[in-house]
Amino acid sequence: MAVKTAEQYYESLRKTRPTAYVLGEKVANIHDHPLIKGQVAGVAQTYALAHDPEGEKLLVADSKLAGEKVNRFVRLYESPEDLIVKIKMLKFLSQRVGTCYMRCTGLDAINATALTTFDVDKKYGTPYHTRFLDWLNFIQKNDFVVWSGVTDVKGDRSKRPSEQADPDMYLRIIERRKDGVVVRGAKAHQSGSLCSHWGLIIPSREMRAADKDYAVCFAVPTDAKGVIHVYGRGTLEERALEGVDLGNVNYSKFAPLVIFDDVFIPDEHIFLCGEHEFAGQMVRAFGSYHRHSHGGCKCGVGDILIGAAATIADYNGVPDATHIGMKLTEMIKTVQTMYGCCLAASIEATRHESGIYQVDTVLANTSKLYEGKEYDETIRLLVDIAGGFVADLPSEKDLRNPEIGKLVDKYLKGRPGVSTEDRMRMFRLIEKLAFETRDIVSNIHGGGSPEAHRMTLLRDTDLEPKKKLAKRLAGIKEDK
Amino acid sequence: MAVKTAEQYYESLRKTRPTAYVLGEKVANIHDHPLIKGQVAGVAQTYALAHDPEGEKLLVADSKLAGEKVNRFVRLYESPEDLIVKIKMLKFLSQRVGTCYMRCTGLDAINATALTTFDVDKKYGTPYHTRFLDWLNFIQKNDFVVWSGVTDVKGDRSKRPSEQADPDMYLRIIERRKDGVVVRGAKAHQSGSLCSHWGLIIPSREMRAADKDYAVCFAVPTDAKGVIHVYGRGTLEERALEGVDLGNVNYSKFAPLVIFDDVFIPDEHIFLCGEHEFAGQMVRAFGSYHRHSHGGCKCGVGDILIGAAATIADYNGVPDATHIGMKLTEMIKTVQTMYGCCLAASIEATRHESGIYQVDTVLANTSKLYEGKEYDETIRLLVDIAGGFVADLPSEKDLRNPEIGKLVDKYLKGRPGVSTEDRMRMFRLIEKLAFETRDIVSNIHGGGSPEAHRMTLLRDTDLEPKKKLAKRLAGIKEDK
Amino acid sequence: MAVKTAEQYYESLRKTRPTAYVLGEKVANIHDHPLIKGQVAGVAQTYALAHDPEGEKLLVADSKLAGEKVNRFVRLYESPEDLIVKIKMLKFLSQRVGTCYMRCTGLDAINATALTTFDVDKKYGTPYHTRFLDWLNFIQKNDFVVWSGVTDVKGDRSKRPSEQADPDMYLRIIERRKDGVVVRGAKAHQSGSLCSHWGLIIPSREMRAADKDYAVCFAVPTDAKGVIHVYGRGTLEERALEGVDLGNVNYSKFAPLVIFDDVFIPDEHIFLCGEHEFAGQMVRAFGSYHRHSHGGCKCGVGDILIGAAATIADYNGVPDATHIGMKLTEMIKTVQTMYGCCLAASIEATRHESGIYQVDTVLANTSKLYEGKEYDETIRLLVDIAGGFVADLPSEKDLRNPEIGKLVDKYLKGRPGVSTEDRMRMFRLIEKLAFETRDIVSNIHGGGSPEAHRMTLLRDTDLEPKKKLAKRLAGIKEDK
Amino acid sequence: MAVKTAEQYYESLRKTRPTAYVLGEKVANIHDHPLIKGQVAGVAQTYALAHDPEGEKLLVADSKLAGEKVNRFVRLYESPEDLIVKIKMLKFLSQRVGTCYMRCTGLDAINATALTTFDVDKKYGTPYHTRFLDWLNFIQKNDFVVWSGVTDVKGDRSKRPSEQADPDMYLRIIERRKDGVVVRGAKAHQSGSLCSHWGLIIPSREMRAADKDYAVCFAVPTDAKGVIHVYGRGTLEERALEGVDLGNVNYSKFAPLVIFDDVFIPDEHIFLCGEHEFAGQMVRAFGSYHRHSHGGCKCGVGDILIGAAATIADYNGVPDATHIGMKLTEMIKTVQTMYGCCLAASIEATRHESGIYQVDTVLANTSKLYEGKEYDETIRLLVDIAGGFVADLPSEKDLRNPEIGKLVDKYLKGRPGVSTEDRMRMFRLIEKLAFETRDIVSNIHGGGSPEAHRMTLLRDTDLEPKKKLAKRLAGIKEDK
Repeated sequence: MAVKTAEQYYESLRKTRPTAYVLGEKVANIHDHPLIKGQVAGVAQTYALAHDPEGEKLLVADSKLAGEKVNRFVRLYESPEDLIVKIKMLKFLSQRVGTCYMRCTGLDAINATALTTFDVDKKYGTPYHTRFLDWLNFIQKNDFVVWSGVTDVKGDRSKRPSEQADPDMYLRIIERRKDGVVVRGAKAHQSGSLCSHWGLIIPSREMRAADKDYAVCFAVPTDAKGVIHVYGRGTLEERALEGVDLGNVNYSKFAPLVIFDDVFIPDEHIFLCGEHEFAGQMVRAFGSYHRHSHGGCKCGVGDILIGAAATIADYNGVPDATHIGMKLTEMIKTVQTMYGCCLAASIEATRHESGIYQVDTVLANTSKLYEGKEYDETIRLLVDIAGGFVADLPSEKDLRNPEIGKLVDKYLKGRPGVSTEDRMRMFRLIEKLAFETRDIVSNIHGGGSPEAHRMTLLRDTDLEPKKKLAKRLAGIKEDK
Repeated sequence: MAVKTAEQYYESLRKTRPTAYVLGEKVANIHDHPLIKGQVAGVAQTYALAHDPEGEKLLVADSKLAGEKVNRFVRLYESPEDLIVKIKMLKFLSQRVGTCYMRCTGLDAINATALTTFDVDKKYGTPYHTRFLDWLNFIQKNDFVVWSGVTDVKGDRSKRPSEQADPDMYLRIIERRKDGVVVRGAKAHQSGSLCSHWGLIIPSREMRAADKDYAVCFAVPTDAKGVIHVYGRGTLEERALEGVDLGNVNYSKFAPLVIFDDVFIPDEHIFLCGEHEFAGQMVRAFGSYHRHSHGGCKCGVGDILIGAAATIADYNGVPDATHIGMKLTEMIKTVQTMYGCCLAASIEATRHESGIYQVDTVLANTSKLYEGKEYDETIRLLVDIAGGFVADLPSEKDLRNPEIGKLVDKYLKGRPGVSTEDRMRMFRLIEKLAFETRDIVSNIHGGGSPEAHRMTLLRDTDLEPKKKLAKRLAGIKEDK
Repeated sequence: MAVKTAEQYYESLRKTRPTAYVLGEKVANIHDHPLIKGQVAGVAQTYALAHDPEGEKLLVADSKLAGEKVNRFVRLYESPEDLIVKIKMLKFLSQRVGTCYMRCTGLDAINATALTTFDVDKKYGTPYHTRFLDWLNFIQKNDFVVWSGVTDVKGDRSKRPSEQADPDMYLRIIERRKDGVVVRGAKAHQSGSLCSHWGLIIPSREMRAADKDYAVCFAVPTDAKGVIHVYGRGTLEERALEGVDLGNVNYSKFAPLVIFDDVFIPDEHIFLCGEHEFAGQMVRAFGSYHRHSHGGCKCGVGDILIGAAATIADYNGVPDATHIGMKLTEMIKTVQTMYGCCLAASIEATRHESGIYQVDTVLANTSKLYEGKEYDETIRLLVDIAGGFVADLPSEKDLRNPEIGKLVDKYLKGRPGVSTEDRMRMFRLIEKLAFETRDIVSNIHGGGSPEAHRMTLLRDTDLEPKKKLAKRLAGIKEDK
Repeated sequence: MAVKTAEQYYESLRKTRPTAYVLGEKVANIHDHPLIKGQVAGVAQTYALAHDPEGEKLLVADSKLAGEKVNRFVRLYESPEDLIVKIKMLKFLSQRVGTCYMRCTGLDAINATALTTFDVDKKYGTPYHTRFLDWLNFIQKNDFVVWSGVTDVKGDRSKRPSEQADPDMYLRIIERRKDGVVVRGAKAHQSGSLCSHWGLIIPSREMRAADKDYAVCFAVPTDAKGVIHVYGRGTLEERALEGVDLGNVNYSKFAPLVIFDDVFIPDEHIFLCGEHEFAGQMVRAFGSYHRHSHGGCKCGVGDILIGAAATIADYNGVPDATHIGMKLTEMIKTVQTMYGCCLAASIEATRHESGIYQVDTVLANTSKLYEGKEYDETIRLLVDIAGGFVADLPSEKDLRNPEIGKLVDKYLKGRPGVSTEDRMRMFRLIEKLAFETRDIVSNIHGGGSPEAHRMTLLRDTDLEPKKKLAKRLAGIKEDK
């Protein structure tokens, strides 16, 4: 059966043997590492909840390709309704995990690759689309986790790929063999790469003729030879290493730098190979899908932000203060805006010739702009409501200390009826929600930077009809 | 045939003889008055475009009640799709009229009254719902314009209706007769009342037992005896009086104070009469529908704002300046947000037992909050892009003056290829869009004040499930 | 005696005979025209209050140049304290006039010209500085009103002066005679030009060698031959023409386009004539002084905005509503910010070699950026607090109408103890404060556009020392 | 000599033996603990720079009390100029330390206590003021570090001190002896308490008669018996414990919970003891001084934020991108606003009868409101400019790893000419500046919560004169 359980996921994951470094050391049983296991647990929820009565409605659907039910995280967007359900699914999961479960990156890359390969084949008669569907069918049958490798390290950002002093600053083909290619480069910010079975690698920008070796898309096993995952540091590591004061007690996130140190990719896994004029389409399709996904995911986390704010206000004894109601209202407003614009981007979706539906890019990027700016204010409001202990709460270890434990318990108490321990736990969750870098920075830079969102918004808005409307009202005759 | 033409509208309107005062004088042929006729022309477009191929798709639909096609402005919301189409219809009209065409107020009051009367009858066995549908059928058959009288003058805002020094500060029943009631009071800000045939009057707030004489809903002909329309002043009146420098050359808006100086309402037109506990439901239903309508209407005007900004930047010679692109992006972002949240509020609509669909109130009020604040910034950005001549452009009369006309033409010219006259017209349109009070203040106070929107947002959000989600993640056991 | 009274001002003004057009007609007794006299009255307050015990402390000071007391509006900035007093003087006047009294434009142009001519003479041995001081001495002795002509009409804004299709889009020298020059061009947005005796005309931008004919600075009588003032329209003209519903009952603003239709300027009034590299310095000095002035002036008007908001909240019966307190707090915050940054820009002032003090440009432009954006939100908050009658209040003529006057009086009443007439007057003032274009647009575009303020802020901030501080903390060795 | 060196500071500090717990364990040589020593080093700079030619001008001044030069951190505000210098001194230090050096808390408490005790003595004939000056003289002579204990733990925030279920939730007198009192309670968020020699403890709110045991102010040695410092956790502890990836390589911050477990205070160190009506004055005076201090300190850190943003943009190869210039402009604007309002609050300072100068509270609180909200946006802009590596940069330990070090070096490189190590260091500094909780949360909650600042702003603004100004302009006769 295609829809795996959490146990089956863990089992299959442990069969992978990725090359991984954490804080300067090579690590063998990486999936059990205290800095890694929190996100494995989050991904496992995408399996577990597929077997939950409520979750199944959102997480499981028929796949035309597989001819059976599959997990939506490996399925194509076959209708506007699918895009609406994706938003609701991501919201549902985020409400339960409170951080990244990473599978949306693969999902969005799968759809972007599927539709772009269709267009490439149409122009060039290449076999990418069929090849891709074969691979996707294999992924669906095995219900694998796929990470998408998009963001190159970029080196000097004022230079195009082929202009860089070091030509490897964008991932590229360094050798073409008769049965495949060898690639070199590095993809940064690879959320949860070590939780996955396969990677789907796509270009990170539009390319010109001179950049054609950089116009490459392929699938690769997470533990392929030459693929090296280097853990990127976040805040709050000491908590995971100690196993105390965790905030989010079960789930966490990490995002390695993944280096492709001359990795061989066989033909059957290559889905773009030099057709440079399609690189832009592929990454833009990915980008708009992924900004849309963020709207679902982050409004689920948004419900946690709101819930945490309301809870700590209650624990502090002031659930009904007027200014707190006003701040909660601002928080709700922003979260609903992200959600609303993504639902709307789904309804206004259009059908690509491949049969895949594409979101309205203007509405999807609008949602993402709120995530990049106003959502940050939502987090600030949470800290504002909570108070200073977000900064400097003593440890649970102090609460357990035989000499001062009672004093800590006494002085960190909030309103009667709430235990100090519960109040401390809520402060820890808020600290995690507000200050864990990998979670927070993704609000700004996940799915491209705010500048990319702005440029997309403006580029994809046709100003001419609007200018005509204004001229007509003003009594200006149409320009000849 | 139920769907009238613009000519039929004008003809029917001229048969009404409302009592109207403008700037201290009683006016007979009110529909031709220079301060009034601009909005009559706007309303006429709701008829004319119903016979336009593109407009018909949005403006005309079958009515179960009338058993024939009717104008959507007098029809019930029978599905989520109807709510989506309403948004698109209002956007379409606003793009063409650029200001208020007023019929959405009646539409929203019709639906609010229909569903509330259903509930009143269910509780009390009253005949309001049937009575209302009879009246509505009559309105549909005649394709009449209906204005909704909601906002009372309120007097001392810290007092409830029955506590006011003058009991008439909220409209009330002052006498109950065997065949009807006599009402007294005044409704403020009655956009375009003089363009209509009938009014549908509903309470403006929730009422308590002591306020039961204020819990009254009824229909009344616009020219009924005792109904007095007193024109409210706006900016830019001198332009309409002179017929020059109009900005929006065909359309305008006005909003009288409508006084009910002891008006008799026969039983057949009474739809609520003392059942105080339903007053709140009725106005809240109206409010959420109307905030939703604003999202459609104002994002149509928003396209004009954006189009005018892009046009004047072009006329000034700087269409591609980076900072102007960034400002246009901000404008688009806000307008799309209002639109997106209203589409989403339609999809998330729920069915009332009467068969009428109600919008998601949180999303609808979210949209309205942007209209109340960020949309104002959109207008500021338009002025920022346009430059100082929004403030103090010489008149077209100066351009026509034989002595200085040529100098004015010479010095007010922008980039080559654009006539000074066209540039002046665009500045005038911008002045109108940015500084005509009745248009602009409605962004803030139309459909209730921002404070009402905030309160609705918070009241209609259930915080408890969100608190539970946060506690679960933090490892806090559910409160017993 | 140099410090004139209001009566002496009126008397001297009536001796001028400027060429003026209003709404397409040439007007003879222009100072009495209903659209003009409101600002003449405002300027008169700069004289009247110089003889008021409180006002005198701010408005009158010794002049080294004149050797006697003069009005500060025609005096040089001889110390940081002078700049502080300027801010307080402008605030004081704005609190009493509530709109523009225009003399700060001349004051700032006087100081910018004084210091720039010093530098020109130093480089070229020209006689501009002495000449200028002679003229200024004459102005001080006569206590004349000076308007500053800065903003050119600009034509195609993507082109430099010498690149324009029509070379007159920036004011320029078209002929050099042995005793002077002839100039042609037009200056836009000339606040209150017709209230003045003299104009001081300076370039509106930096100039290159090709633009040297545009690098011209001179003084000119307001009624010189060839100087034509064309009235620019604002929003509330009908009120002034009727003399009713004025809002601000005594004072108003206007801003003509002033055309220089081949005007001869004798040598003694020429203070820059082709030394193109000083044009930029002159206008930048003016710009920073004037943005500084705005901080004083607009925070005085800001006190009126706050006072009007607090008054109408009181009249509506809700002076103590929590949300109104929060909105007043936001308003106060913005107004204090503008004030605070301008005081700080005064303390951090630096002495120019001429002995004149220059404001800290970063702080002055910071203040102006708030005026351009957040101050607009302050006005929106005022409208939010006041309610819908800002849009559509019936006229005082309706209140006086024998048929409906009593009804209008009854229904427009607020809380007990406040007359309807007073409440209507306060709504009218708010309408004027929020929607009179010449006042409001100047918040955004007065003293240059927000983009100019941003560019100044960034250009005048030295980033290098800040980069060094950051590198040192990070443990990065200084770049060689 | 009163102005100590850094070495003398370290020496004197090591003589103290405070009771300190860190992460559940009692720590003996606390000043050398890796989580503590970073702030000791920061405080040491307040000594070191007093002997630096540039620093001395700001840090050293004559004290009337000591009759010799003292460090300004233990001196009274004797003039508006002193308040200006304080701002410049704090900015200077923050630019060099990049985080908290804590002595301003003592400085502000010293001044608040000095002026309030003057008023208490005047009313009651108590000896507090003289006593306090004696103690202050001793502090000045020894150039000691003083921390101010203000914020109580508060328990149920809806209750006053005497209403709490546990009466110790605000620090209070539990026993009065003939030679002193015994106090119990806890003060939270005590920035750098362990870097100090003495504490000066003041009430955290206004008190009523029932709360008189809570109206207590006193001095206490940091290592007094019963005083227990419990370390509060922050986000980046693992770095300090490892001694790598520090960001700010020398300086850091911590903020314990300080418990007063029945501490005896002798009479000579008691400066308020039950005179409840002065508790509010004392804490409000402290609050306004301290919000003022924040404006100096945080605008120094702001220069680091700006410098780090400009540096990383350079390292990324895009120093001149338009959007980055715009973002830097926003950052500069906010930082200058905080600085400007604090300078202005100094000029507008007023003299208390004790001879001490008090800042303008409205301007000081205005500055703090920007720190609480817009400054957070400044930090977001820094992250926006820097890019995703703020979230997940590999460790310097990876760079040093023999197997992957070269690959890390290769792929984390930015523009040519900048070493990977330097780029990594800058990312680490940015991470520290943006995500170290004790630094960031203090922007919001330091010196009281934003709600306290808003309330102060509104309470300390007299609305009546503003209302009169508005009424006069509207032609409304003064209310009788």
